Amino acid sequence: MSNSNAIILASGGLDSTVTAAIARSEGCDLYLLTIFYGQRHRIEVTRAASIATWLQAKEHKVIELDLRAFGGSALTEDLEVPKQQSLNAREAGIPITYVPARNTIFLSLALAYAEVIHATRIYFGANVRDYSGYPDCRPEFVEAFETVARLGTQRGVNGESLEIHTPLMMMTKAEIIQKGLELEVPLELTHSCYAPHADGRVCGECDSCLFRQEGFHAVGIDDPSTIPSP
Amino acid sequence: MSNSNAIILASGGLDSTVTAAIARSEGCDLYLLTIFYGQRHRIEVTRAASIATWLQAKEHKVIELDLRAFGGSALTEDLEVPKQQSLNAREAGIPITYVPARNTIFLSLALAYAEVIHATRIYFGANVRDYSGYPDCRPEFVEAFETVARLGTQRGVNGESLEIHTPLMMMTKAEIIQKGLELEVPLELTHSCYAPHADGRVCGECDSCLFRQEGFHAVGIDDPSTIPSP
Repeated sequence: MSNSNAIILASGGLDSTVTAAIARSEGCDLYLLTIFYGQRHRIEVTRAASIATWLQAKEHKVIELDLRAFGGSALTEDLEVPKQQSLNAREAGIPITYVPARNTIFLSLALAYAEVIHATRIYFGANVRDYSGYPDCRPEFVEAFETVARLGTQRGVNGESLEIHTPLMMMTKAEIIQKGLELEVPLELTHSCYAPHADGRVCGECDSCLFRQEGFHAVGIDDPSTIPSP
Repeated sequence: MSNSNAIILASGGLDSTVTAAIARSEGCDLYLLTIFYGQRHRIEVTRAASIATWLQAKEHKVIELDLRAFGGSALTEDLEVPKQQSLNAREAGIPITYVPARNTIFLSLALAYAEVIHATRIYFGANVRDYSGYPDCRPEFVEAFETVARLGTQRGVNGESLEIHTPLMMMTKAEIIQKGLELEVPLELTHSCYAPHADGRVCGECDSCLFRQEGFHAVGIDDPSTIPSP
């Protein structure tokens, strides 16, 4: 089987790590791209580096891009990240943790990287179930971006393929965790909290923590990332 | 007439400056966005700042994003910028000065800015005549990106309008210069060279310089940016 080069948008979180493991299981050579966008916690970047090592990625690029210059999100501004909201009772609106145009920016950087290393795929851990309030996590957005990728790159214009894969799109958090276990992903390395403490411990109360807790609960195991080392 | 907020992708060059002046003439309040992407010449950024002042822009943001991390272009790598190619005899292929996915990245950053300041328009100086070799300067690319903008943002999902305007798309360089003269654009401030000397003087030999020379020649005036100060 001839390998494809794949760009993985790797945040260091559970979803993007399972996505990367799926890409590897599909025979791809992995090129990880982590974008440090001025989010409040650098721990995501160090975790992404450990995960890149575990995945035997061909390369791991970390790009600095300070989206705080624009503001408009609890993740890049000094706004309070909402806690202890009921997952079902959350407003149907767009969450305060939405970072304006973030996934469009991330995919466009992945596109640049894909052009240079001749990647045929970009993997991206978008998920419509937990993140239905984020416009840029929906299938129709991903399809529209695939058209941009085809029309706006040398690869596309030359008729070479460049697909955007979102294998988690329709999965529940429990299904994502199951998939991670099946692929022996070191889930203890993944970090998914929006508002960790200064020492990197998760808050346990933000949406991202709550989704994760629910997922591990549904699978019937403890989250290895929250078990204190002996 | 009620003003619209407009984001202008402002490089400090002739095309983006005339584009900004057109946006102003159409009644927009201007928010300039300059992306310093590791191109070899910072002069573009200082010129963009002078132009923002002249335009009475509401705001001018400069974002640093080091696209040298990916490489793949004469503008971001240590490759020689081609000189003295005949404009007609240039290969039909994609020029070495194409920066992979550059305009997709720039438009996605403009999209983030547009979300935050509630802009209804993004102006972008794409031009298909001089830059037909660049996939991301073509109308079909811009249309595809407009779909991404609609599906991938809060504005779009809320049904608010966010249009991408490319008023120069079909114009010749001479027509762009004429439009600039008509709008009293300080053309002497604009900088369009791919490979300027260390002191900021233009090379006079790259594609960008040649297009500009041809344009001024066709209009029948001297390029004010190349006239030495007394």
